[in-house]
This record gives sequence, structure tokens and C-alpha cells, in this order.
Amino acid sequence: MVVPGAASDCTARMRTEVAIIGGGPAGLLLSHLLSAEGIDSVIIEARSQEYVLSRIRAGILEHSTVELLDQIGLGRRLHAEGHEHRGIYLQWPEERHHIDFVDHVGRSVWVYGQTEVTKDLVAARERDGQEIYYEASDTAVHDIDSDAPYVTFTDSAGRPQRVDAVVIAGCDGSFGPSRAAVPDAVRHTWERVYPYSWLGILADVAPSTDELIYAWHPDGFAMHSMRSDTVSRLYLQVPNGTDVTTWSDDQIWDSLATRLGHGQDGWTLNPGPITDRSVLPMRSYVQTPMRHGALFLAGDAAHTVPPTGAKGLNLAVADVAALAPALTALLRGNNPKPAASYSDVALRRVWRCTHFSWWMTTMLHTSGDPFDEQLQLSQLRWVATSDAGAAGLAENYAGLPIGF
Amino acid sequence: MVVPGAASDCTARMRTEVAIIGGGPAGLLLSHLLSAEGIDSVIIEARSQEYVLSRIRAGILEHSTVELLDQIGLGRRLHAEGHEHRGIYLQWPEERHHIDFVDHVGRSVWVYGQTEVTKDLVAARERDGQEIYYEASDTAVHDIDSDAPYVTFTDSAGRPQRVDAVVIAGCDGSFGPSRAAVPDAVRHTWERVYPYSWLGILADVAPSTDELIYAWHPDGFAMHSMRSDTVSRLYLQVPNGTDVTTWSDDQIWDSLATRLGHGQDGWTLNPGPITDRSVLPMRSYVQTPMRHGALFLAGDAAHTVPPTGAKGLNLAVADVAALAPALTALLRGNNPKPAASYSDVALRRVWRCTHFSWWMTTMLHTSGDPFDEQLQLSQLRWVATSDAGAAGLAENYAGLPIGF
Repeated sequence: MVVPGAASDCTARMRTEVAIIGGGPAGLLLSHLLSAEGIDSVIIEARSQEYVLSRIRAGILEHSTVELLDQIGLGRRLHAEGHEHRGIYLQWPEERHHIDFVDHVGRSVWVYGQTEVTKDLVAARERDGQEIYYEASDTAVHDIDSDAPYVTFTDSAGRPQRVDAVVIAGCDGSFGPSRAAVPDAVRHTWERVYPYSWLGILADVAPSTDELIYAWHPDGFAMHSMRSDTVSRLYLQVPNGTDVTTWSDDQIWDSLATRLGHGQDGWTLNPGPITDRSVLPMRSYVQTPMRHGALFLAGDAAHTVPPTGAKGLNLAVADVAALAPALTALLRGNNPKPAASYSDVALRRVWRCTHFSWWMTTMLHTSGDPFDEQLQLSQLRWVATSDAGAAGLAENYAGLPIGF
Repeated sequence: MVVPGAASDCTARMRTEVAIIGGGPAGLLLSHLLSAEGIDSVIIEARSQEYVLSRIRAGILEHSTVELLDQIGLGRRLHAEGHEHRGIYLQWPEERHHIDFVDHVGRSVWVYGQTEVTKDLVAARERDGQEIYYEASDTAVHDIDSDAPYVTFTDSAGRPQRVDAVVIAGCDGSFGPSRAAVPDAVRHTWERVYPYSWLGILADVAPSTDELIYAWHPDGFAMHSMRSDTVSRLYLQVPNGTDVTTWSDDQIWDSLATRLGHGQDGWTLNPGPITDRSVLPMRSYVQTPMRHGALFLAGDAAHTVPPTGAKGLNLAVADVAALAPALTALLRGNNPKPAASYSDVALRRVWRCTHFSWWMTTMLHTSGDPFDEQLQLSQLRWVATSDAGAAGLAENYAGLPIGF
């Protein structure tokens, strides 16, 4: 076989069935699910293992994500150290309502950080002897329109590498090379940039609430989440372009207290040392198709949701839960149909979650438009007091069954 | 008593308990409900009786409107000549779904034109000997901050009239004088003008559907409604500022056929002679408070909704159903509390219906934004296929109980 341009003579070459770009939860889970079917994969990750294992991301696992982790034997620590939540609190000035997902749709969610899920997946992959290349640079996807696609990259030792594969899985998020590897002529993108960001903090203080609080307030949205019994995670809506250093600790806690209703009905917000702070922009993005030739996209490589509603990680898991059997059918079952319909099947859920995330976001963040403000309050009242309204939120938040 | 400026020496004077401005369904119903409590009213209407009895407006009565009309003995013709609908069809290209309100919330709606409701009310008021001044001009509200408010107008014979009352009910719609009589210092208004209008037609042809069809289409929204077994009412989304004469009959029927899915699954749209056509702008408007001093606003005098979702007439009826007992308590029960809380009570439902109408409108009309289009389709799919989604639409469309 003639090796095309990109690989030079000194390039190390290897062959696998599925070259997975991205060693976050999507790529690791895919590798794990494929491995269970005896399918060989190689994972190529741009960051260091230390970085991957420590980056702070989502913290809510929806029902079907937990079910899947249980099924593949990775639910032990989640159940021991995570916390099951029956629902969330939805509030606006003077009123706080609990939306009980279990009552409404029979499903709960679990608070268990993405960092922890990643740790469990990395440990499982290491037990299996999975090949993971960390700190890979210049990763590029080649010949995805052919039946001999391959990935090139420079490994952490500076050595050029080439991985020949049957298919390539792009699990490399918004900034990886996979998304852009789909030719412009077939690629469609949809995007919405929201006119606000989140200022997020981690604080060494016990959460002041047993379940998450989503608060609408004229000053802007606020949210009280948590990572553990001793670590709280809180967010404030701030204008785009906010410099995180311009907010003092006192200002942050004061704003959180006001927006979350400190003192209302005897509820108090306990402040504590802030150990991490960052500003997160809010964006919706979808790219189609999610499969082009030998390249399959999963997770943030194909779509981004704003964090309101906690869909990002769960949607990546759902993509992979559809992709793994599709690739298994393709590579083992001589059945290309599930792979052919992967994009359509996955996009149905992607758009459902994109809509839900947009809905939660636009219902809870103030835009400065007084008519919007009244619509938001009326909608919040309806969701909190109508069975149908609460069930709608619960169904989407606790998550649809895998395969929806 | 000294009569202030507006009334000249030749002015005819009368006294009543409630001066009602507006002889549409809201004013007539209020007069009817007050009369049942022995409370005297005078109705002042700008248009001729012929005009009021023939103008084409809404055609859908929600469950509680029907219940109220039944309770006051005005449901006979409605049940004989109207049609009960269990739900609506929601559709987009290739798919039509029936949303069954009765299955979801145990309530139905009735197709019975506002024109017919008005006829029944006028007949009932005439049987009672109710004073109704038609073709009144220069109607003005005076001294609503005092305990001696009054209304002046010029009657159809050109004679100045003055009505002294205990309270004034503004049931005179968006263009009447009541809305503007609330002083600027206390008045708050919210408004949203939509970037599209409806081209509505009446046609002498049997409806091609048993229940209303709400159709999303890339070309724009379309709707198939009906007035009777032989008269169809249909709508097309058109750009604002559309001149109705620029659409030929063939163009209208062709667009309706395309957007409503003629030929899809064997369904056909039967065209017929168009007997009326008009372009309706789409607007949301709310004014608060709904009571100031001796002036109480009801119906379109306080709020306007876009027609999607059929809330206009029903909301006016709900306002009056709250206002009549409040005025009865004030005038007969020596209890000013219900009148004092009328505005807050009514506005809760007003904002619910304003939100619902906005939601139906923005879900179904194309805006030209491709991201919005995908959100709409995902939301439509969810509403049509999820119990919670369908129940949410059903609950709002079939209508909340009076007193919500």
C-alpha cells in the first residue's frame, strides 16, 4: 500500500479498527463499549492525562446516563460517592418551588462530576490495556471519503504517528480537528450566541441546598449547584466579555445572596472560600451530518449546548450509546444500516436537547426586555404549578431513554 | 351637584350603577351578569348594531367559556349549531398529529363564532330591556379618581349625553377611550409586534378537515379553521404590510394547498369561492393596572393577543367572569376586596394566555432564522409525541378554569 503525503518515512504506523480522536468522556466511553464487543481502538488526545482528569465540567447525570454506566459496570463509585436528586428548585423573587422529577416521570438525576466519570472511564480503559496517546499535537484526519482513512499526529515525544483505521470517531469537542474535517459542501451548521455568560465559582463550603436551585431574578439568573458535601458550585449571569477579576469575593457572594433569595422564608446562603472562578460563554451549535464517509462525530464535536439544563455530557453519552452499536454492526455484523442512520438517529435527540437547553436558558436569563420578563415569569409560574408544565421540564431534564 | 365642563346645558343626563363602554361580547356579557344580580348598567357602543352583529372575529370557545354560557342560559344555540372539537391537528411537512385535549385534560373546545355569541347576548339583553346606545361618538371618561365618575358621548341622533355611574367598565377594545383614560403616571404597558401578519379568508366550501389544522411550513404558517359545515376559514402567514389585493384566489388556494399538505397521505384541500379576505397584524399588548379608581378594564381594552391559540375572546370572557362578582360585591355586598384584587387576579390569567399565545405564535410562524426553524421543528415533534408536551398545549388551549 502506498502511503499518501502526510506520513514521512520516519512516521510510526499502527493499524486499528476505530481511531478515536479525543480522550474525554465521549471518546473513553466509545472505546470502552467497542472493547466489550472485541473491537480494537486507539485514542488520541491533545491534552495531558492530568488535565483531562482535573478539568471542571458538568456535574449532573441524567437517568439514562446512570443506567448505561451501571450496565457496563462503571456505576459503583457513582452510587457510593454521588448523590441522587429527585428534582430541582425553580425560583423567582418571593417564590421557590420544587419540581419533583420522580413524581412526574419516575426518573431521577445524579450529582456526580464529569471529572469523576472521566476518572472511572480512564481507570477502566487502563485495566483493559487501552492505547491512549495524550498530548498529541497536529492531529489531522485524512481520506475520510475513502475506505482507507487515517489519522496523523505528533506524539508527546515529538514523534510523527499515523493510525490507519476502518473508521474514525471524532470525539474531540468544539475545538478539535474532526468538526472541520467534514467538507464545507456537505456541512450544515446552526448557531446561536446568547447575550450573556456565566460567572462560575467553586467554593469550599457545604451546599446551602439539598438539590440544585435555578433562580430567575431581575438582576440576572443565578444557580446553586454542588460537587460534594463540602464543595459548592454556584453561577451568576454576567454580561458577555466580563473579566472575572473585576468581581471581588464579596461582590460575588452578595449577588448570589440577592438573586438566590438569602433571608427569604428563613433560607440562608452560606458563603465560603472561593477556590476557582471562571466566565463561561453560552452558545448553541449544531453541525450536520454527524457522519461523513468514514468519520463519525459524537458529543461536542458535533454540537454545543448552553449549560442550563445540564445536557452537554449526557448528550455526548447518548451519541456514543448510539454510535457504539452502529459501529459494531458495521465492523462485526456486516450490517451498515445503523451506521448509515446514525446521524439522523442522533440528531433527533440532539435537537430535542438543543431545544430544551435553549428553552431553559431563555426562560431563566434576563434579557432586559420587559415583555420577555413577564413571559418568563408567567412561564415559570405555569411550569411550577401545572402538572403538565412540571412534567415537561422533568421529562427533558431527567432525560429521555437512550435510543429516543 | 355641579356638573363639570364637558356637559352643557342641553346634555341629556342619566344615572346608572355601571356605565359600560363597548357593546361587544365583553360589555354585553358584563351587563348580563350584573343584571342577574339586579345591578343596573348602560352600554355605550361606537359602532352600529348591524356592524357589531356581523363583524368576523374568533371562532373557538374554550371549555370554561362554554360552561359559563351554559350557566347563564345562553348555551342553547351554541350546542345546537356549534361543533364540539376534541382537539386540533398540529402538522409540519410529512407529518400530521392529532392533539386530543379530552384525552389529555378532560376538556374540549367548541367552534361557535364570536358573531354568534354576540347575537345571543344582544338578544338576551334586548329581552331584559337593556339600554344600549349604538353609534355613540366622542365617548369620554371623566373623574375616575373621584366617587362621581361619568361618561359623556354624542348619541346616534347627534345629542350630547352624560351617564353618571358608580363605576365605569371599559370593554371597548384596543381603540376605545378607556385604555387611554388610565393616567400615564400609573399605567404600564408591554408590547410585542410580530414580524408577520395573517391573510385570512372566508370561503363558501365545506371544511376539508373535521378539526382545526395548525401547520408549520418553511413557506410560513397556515391554518385551516371553519365557521360551519359549509363555510371554511383559512389563514396564511404573510409579511407585514401585505396588500390583500395582491393575492389572487388561485395564489391563495395554491399556497394553502402547499402549506397544509394537499396530497399528503391522501388528504385533499377543497377550494371554493372566497367571500371575504383581510390581512390581520399580530400583536401582544398588556396594560396594567386593569383597575384605576372607578374605571375597570376588561378584554381587549387591557390586552391584545395574537390570534394563534384562540385566546382573545375567551380571555375577555374570563375577565368579565371575574369582574362581575367583584362589582357585585362592591355595589351590593359592601365588600370592596374583590374589586381591589380584580386587576391582580385577572392579570394572572392574562399573562398565562399572553405567554401561551406568544408560544403558539413563535412555534408556528417562520422567522427566516435557520436555528429558530430547527427549534420549532424539535418543539413541534416533542409536543406531538410526548404526553407532557401534548398535555401542556391541551391545558392552555382548552383553557384554565374560570378563577384561575
